[in-house]
Amino acid sequence: VTAGIIGATGYAGAELVRLLSGHPGISRLVTASTSQEGQPIDSIYPNFLPGEGSSSRFGMLESPEAAIAASDVVFGALPSGAADPYAKTCLDRGISYIDLSADFRFGGDEKTYAAWYGKGWKYPELRGRSVYGLPELNREKIRAAGSPVIIGNPGCYPTAVTLAALPALARNIHSGAAIIADAVSGVTGAGKDLARMYHFPECADSVTAYKVGAHRHSPEIERNLSGAAGRTTTVIFTPHLGPYNRGILATVYIPLAQAAKDAEQFRKLYGEFYAAEPFVRVLPQGLCAATNRVRQSNYCDISVHLSADGSTLIAIGAIDNMVKGAAGQAVQNMNIAAGFDETAGLTALPAVF
Amino acid sequence: VTAGIIGATGYAGAELVRLLSGHPGISRLVTASTSQEGQPIDSIYPNFLPGEGSSSRFGMLESPEAAIAASDVVFGALPSGAADPYAKTCLDRGISYIDLSADFRFGGDEKTYAAWYGKGWKYPELRGRSVYGLPELNREKIRAAGSPVIIGNPGCYPTAVTLAALPALARNIHSGAAIIADAVSGVTGAGKDLARMYHFPECADSVTAYKVGAHRHSPEIERNLSGAAGRTTTVIFTPHLGPYNRGILATVYIPLAQAAKDAEQFRKLYGEFYAAEPFVRVLPQGLCAATNRVRQSNYCDISVHLSADGSTLIAIGAIDNMVKGAAGQAVQNMNIAAGFDETAGLTALPAVF
Amino acid sequence: VTAGIIGATGYAGAELVRLLSGHPGISRLVTASTSQEGQPIDSIYPNFLPGEGSSSRFGMLESPEAAIAASDVVFGALPSGAADPYAKTCLDRGISYIDLSADFRFGGDEKTYAAWYGKGWKYPELRGRSVYGLPELNREKIRAAGSPVIIGNPGCYPTAVTLAALPALARNIHSGAAIIADAVSGVTGAGKDLARMYHFPECADSVTAYKVGAHRHSPEIERNLSGAAGRTTTVIFTPHLGPYNRGILATVYIPLAQAAKDAEQFRKLYGEFYAAEPFVRVLPQGLCAATNRVRQSNYCDISVHLSADGSTLIAIGAIDNMVKGAAGQAVQNMNIAAGFDETAGLTALPAVF
Amino acid sequence: VTAGIIGATGYAGAELVRLLSGHPGISRLVTASTSQEGQPIDSIYPNFLPGEGSSSRFGMLESPEAAIAASDVVFGALPSGAADPYAKTCLDRGISYIDLSADFRFGGDEKTYAAWYGKGWKYPELRGRSVYGLPELNREKIRAAGSPVIIGNPGCYPTAVTLAALPALARNIHSGAAIIADAVSGVTGAGKDLARMYHFPECADSVTAYKVGAHRHSPEIERNLSGAAGRTTTVIFTPHLGPYNRGILATVYIPLAQAAKDAEQFRKLYGEFYAAEPFVRVLPQGLCAATNRVRQSNYCDISVHLSADGSTLIAIGAIDNMVKGAAGQAVQNMNIAAGFDETAGLTALPAVF
Repeated sequence: VTAGIIGATGYAGAELVRLLSGHPGISRLVTASTSQEGQPIDSIYPNFLPGEGSSSRFGMLESPEAAIAASDVVFGALPSGAADPYAKTCLDRGISYIDLSADFRFGGDEKTYAAWYGKGWKYPELRGRSVYGLPELNREKIRAAGSPVIIGNPGCYPTAVTLAALPALARNIHSGAAIIADAVSGVTGAGKDLARMYHFPECADSVTAYKVGAHRHSPEIERNLSGAAGRTTTVIFTPHLGPYNRGILATVYIPLAQAAKDAEQFRKLYGEFYAAEPFVRVLPQGLCAATNRVRQSNYCDISVHLSADGSTLIAIGAIDNMVKGAAGQAVQNMNIAAGFDETAGLTALPAVF
Repeated sequence: VTAGIIGATGYAGAELVRLLSGHPGISRLVTASTSQEGQPIDSIYPNFLPGEGSSSRFGMLESPEAAIAASDVVFGALPSGAADPYAKTCLDRGISYIDLSADFRFGGDEKTYAAWYGKGWKYPELRGRSVYGLPELNREKIRAAGSPVIIGNPGCYPTAVTLAALPALARNIHSGAAIIADAVSGVTGAGKDLARMYHFPECADSVTAYKVGAHRHSPEIERNLSGAAGRTTTVIFTPHLGPYNRGILATVYIPLAQAAKDAEQFRKLYGEFYAAEPFVRVLPQGLCAATNRVRQSNYCDISVHLSADGSTLIAIGAIDNMVKGAAGQAVQNMNIAAGFDETAGLTALPAVF
Repeated sequence: VTAGIIGATGYAGAELVRLLSGHPGISRLVTASTSQEGQPIDSIYPNFLPGEGSSSRFGMLESPEAAIAASDVVFGALPSGAADPYAKTCLDRGISYIDLSADFRFGGDEKTYAAWYGKGWKYPELRGRSVYGLPELNREKIRAAGSPVIIGNPGCYPTAVTLAALPALARNIHSGAAIIADAVSGVTGAGKDLARMYHFPECADSVTAYKVGAHRHSPEIERNLSGAAGRTTTVIFTPHLGPYNRGILATVYIPLAQAAKDAEQFRKLYGEFYAAEPFVRVLPQGLCAATNRVRQSNYCDISVHLSADGSTLIAIGAIDNMVKGAAGQAVQNMNIAAGFDETAGLTALPAVF
Repeated sequence: VTAGIIGATGYAGAELVRLLSGHPGISRLVTASTSQEGQPIDSIYPNFLPGEGSSSRFGMLESPEAAIAASDVVFGALPSGAADPYAKTCLDRGISYIDLSADFRFGGDEKTYAAWYGKGWKYPELRGRSVYGLPELNREKIRAAGSPVIIGNPGCYPTAVTLAALPALARNIHSGAAIIADAVSGVTGAGKDLARMYHFPECADSVTAYKVGAHRHSPEIERNLSGAAGRTTTVIFTPHLGPYNRGILATVYIPLAQAAKDAEQFRKLYGEFYAAEPFVRVLPQGLCAATNRVRQSNYCDISVHLSADGSTLIAIGAIDNMVKGAAGQAVQNMNIAAGFDETAGLTALPAVF
């Protein structure tokens, strides 16, 4: 199988290059860029250079069109708003398109998308052929969608928050009151574009909130949790920026329908809910989720706690925003859609440091 | 005025040394240690060494008793549970004792103290002569307490959370529902004792929660906010550890009695509430509180936001946990109690990096 | 093939667990500990926990003896001074022992070893059956040693410094004057033991030198470079500690026999010298070696420069101290000795962050 | 005294604002910018905002001309190449100009300046009225220069390297062979301009060399050391970038005229050489210079070591690049020139974290 990556020079694209290079079912990678066509990717990311005794695993960056023409499956890692033409071309060619932008995260709800992303879609009708790619929520739909398909890969925060809250909502232990999702992300979440906020001296050694009450991952989170609960559910989501590279920690406060005395029953509920999941780990009592335990892996760790007054379940989710929050989840989606083992290319153990 | 510091070799003690060395009203510092008596403090903290052309500003570490005997005011920066005898000796000598441990944070409520700190007090009666030293909450009581007095310096998290929530509670815009306080601290908050969790390789480049639902700053926070609200108020407090040295960021979610459309009115309310405060800064619209703007200063920055649905005020407080969260606030308390200008020794501007 | 890891709970041991878990030729890992026998390794390193839908890849920690008995090859990742009995048992059982401590780095030179490591060897005769495992220096000896063999895995600093200097020495462009090797390591190099110097607040956000003129990697470096040069060569080696987790950057100053005008000829010489190496990358002009380009990989990146006056070659080597500086190189050695492809288990691309 | 700061919005300018705000001899600060005139500086650096109960200590940013007109002494913190007109205006007005760029670091040697900074000077004749402001080297010249004067504030690396090497050169213990200066700087040294190299994800958690053999601080270093030695002295200088904000550590290798056995005599020599210096600290045996011990202070710490073979003195200097390497040293120079106590405004103790 040949896989194409459009937008390979962005951070999520480069992470796709890293992960797919180790995928046992991918024999060839075609990397593409809308702006740096003709350059080798290892001149942009010299971490990808070959050893002296080897030759580069990668050819020159192609145009998106050339990559699509040469591939059996295509990943799109472009800024939001650019995916439609590439997705369409893929479907027309009979191959699947896995999109890492927000363009296919909203099903047919163009209104919500446009409200948060500033404009509508070029080919709205493509949404009828797309599926939202959070496997723990939607695996059967992904599997059933057939091929070719468009998969809208979830946002990084929505992945962490949804996985942390999902069992509680699906099992109806939530009171229905507003859920608070307080999350902190490493700086890679902001991507490759330079900005003062991400200039080392101004974010190192410090933590801050940003876009409070107004982050565009909010509607995706709320849609996911409302769907899981089977009723409209308010989620108050606050993102923070932490002085490290990889990882999101989402601390999610879920008011309980009935006050409880002990978190253990909920830990058990979470364990049972995720019993078949290859990439979710419900941590044993005594451990709190930490981003360094999932580093460079596709795991989502969840620790389950109770507030001191017993009123509120506190579920804390940790992911690597570049892996389970982006490229790794895209590979997982491809594995499901293409019939590979779901963990193919994603079996490397996380290192604690 | 001669100031004594008991526990000068701990982190809060060393920060007191740093701040009091620049205090215009303190002519002499006497440092003391319960375990390293007889050593010069600059052999333990070589950052305090003098230039070649100067002599050390500090003598040998004294015993606590000797420090008390030589001082006009004494700071205690010992682990919780050790303060009573020193506080008593100070009062007996007619000098004030400013305690940075938890021992005098609970007024006469020995039961709560003992429940969280493992044992009761040696001289419970000292609480009748003590005052809780959060100036923004209690300035008049501190001032009125007369001399000598015992001041219980607040915990670091309670300082950040209380200041972020106080105006909303005091002005009755809170619905009464549970408040959520989600906070992240730098690693200096854990102090000088070695532990695996604070070994650089295991906390660098990562964020985690800890003591979820069970941190001993919880009762202090709940007591402060209940007092401000004039009714029992539940606070769900979750501490996190961030990969940086100084600073606490507390994101506090306060359900509103009436849903609102715009944060500006609340920003104004906060500004008015704190209008006379020298160390609180209510940030203008567009800025989120960040720990690097208060670094090494006694400021508490607060940014005021509204959830997207208008139901919840989100007040974010940032302090330097070693300054406003510990040594700086202790100096501020001394200034108030001793009649110095409240900002004496605390006027250095924060550096952004 | 079953691989055993003695000392699996230390940092190098845990890194061996991570790497060997992905090795295509290793069907089973047996982990052992001298102190935590009977515990599962994922209770000590929860990053190794399985997903909910999987079972642990690891059994309980065994005793060293049990691990040896069950294995076809054994890795020792213990503090220096402990290897001899395990190495002997392995040889007696007819299996190879790859040692990550200093115990087999000095060939038969017990005097030098004892001078730096405080005591001599229990079974000095084992050195006759050992080989020094720096493949780029010693590949043929490793290959020729036959099986079973003891491989002394190099130190982290000696790996970086030797690889940076080797071509210049082997090709006789060095004047013979003292070489200076100035290196900085991340904190994982200090291992798992707690110490004030590695307490996060005391090493974060700072850089320092340590053990100047007295680091015990010095004799190993000097031995390697003298051997390569074919004459006694003085190396002045200064280690530094940097505020990050992984990576060594070694800046090596090699006085030239003849002053030069352009680094390009030396870059070419280095490229040719390492032309067949799978894990060395001689960087193109314009790039300086950086530790984040080799992160979590077995690569050694080398950039080649010239001092402004043309007198001195400046070769800068970057490795991940936990991989090429420890566990990865041990796997590479096993691959060579056991006849696996030399890159087996080591093909994951480095991520830039 | 009113002090003006031109270029107050850059990092060195902002650090001047911080330090001069606490200077007992400066009653008023006038900040100026060539590009952001008319804005308040605390809108650019909100860390400078006043508490709610205070008003801003700063007015609007003025034009450089207005600042000069209103000031008794002026600091210039602009990119190199811009200082001449402002320096001239100051002299014409009879006030001193302290320049933090490279424009007045080269005395009358326009050729060297132009070779490294790309163009010559607008008013070369100003050099006759300028003095190089490294007090430990040049204090008497600064003092004797009279007023008004132009002071060329040294570069950050030259400060650290020169102070580490100076006693050895001035006392003639150097063999005359090339000196190697290997230094690492925090990211603030790169200033405020955005660039990929300083984007947090690409420099965090990593160390790299840069501009090897070609950094423009080289000629300044070589000039200083040659002057101190009284003969042309080659210095091979390699800068590195470390993943932290403040601080330069310079490890300087000085070949000795006579091999030695013990560093103690050199430590004593250094202590005597700097015996009257307020901002140099020669560390006692057993300590290595570290950047976190000088953080936010004007100290230069120096530790003195000997190579294992006794051939080479290793002197390690640590400074805060923003203070002794920029703004603090500028204040020290002003103090000397204007007759203030040399330490005025610079007495705050460094914090270890």
